[in-house]
Amino acid sequence: MDAIEPGHIAVIFVSRRTGADAEGYAEAAAAMDEAVRAAPGYLGHDSVGSDDGGITISYWRDMESVAAWREEITHAATRERGRAHWYDWYRLVVATVDRTREWTQDKG
Amino acid sequence: MDAIEPGHIAVIFVSRRTGADAEGYAEAAAAMDEAVRAAPGYLGHDSVGSDDGGITISYWRDMESVAAWREEITHAATRERGRAHWYDWYRLVVATVDRTREWTQDKG
Repeated sequence: MDAIEPGHIAVIFVSRRTGADAEGYAEAAAAMDEAVRAAPGYLGHDSVGSDDGGITISYWRDMESVAAWREEITHAATRERGRAHWYDWYRLVVATVDRTREWTQDKG
Repeated sequence: MDAIEPGHIAVIFVSRRTGADAEGYAEAAAAMDEAVRAAPGYLGHDSVGSDDGGITISYWRDMESVAAWREEITHAATRERGRAHWYDWYRLVVATVDRTREWTQDKG
């Protein structure tokens, strides 16, 4: 993960999954993961998930990078499949970073 | 959850838990949950977690509400216990909402 700084963009994706057959969810998630790593301005992500749903926050250099990723072809196609097959509900929040703190336990 | 609008604040908390004895984690989480619901400007939260860690995003009316919650006594005390007992690592990101979208599967 690249350092997250004020002015960077956080894209918060909160989802609830359908109980239905995942229909290629794992493969699509892996393909998305590969595609996003190549996306200009992508800094990294935090993600926690389960079969019921999850939260992924991706971090971006600027709003232009977010807009370009929105149009990227793998992402656009996967988004359609997500709405058709995988998700009951989602919330998307795009926010500009004001400040950030990272803390690590001192093992000493 | 109250509606999240542009200008509201998202506080992203990403954590990794210690493997150690949880030492009252569940009780403290319940007390925090009760305290935050009474906090002025609190709009709601999204949370996904496991024994290994999790992501919680709380949403706030404005930065003043976030600052007041930071000083709230249950929160401050619990934060100290978290660093002492429960967490190996965490990241805190405070960000101002630019836009939001909520989507629900049409069951019709």
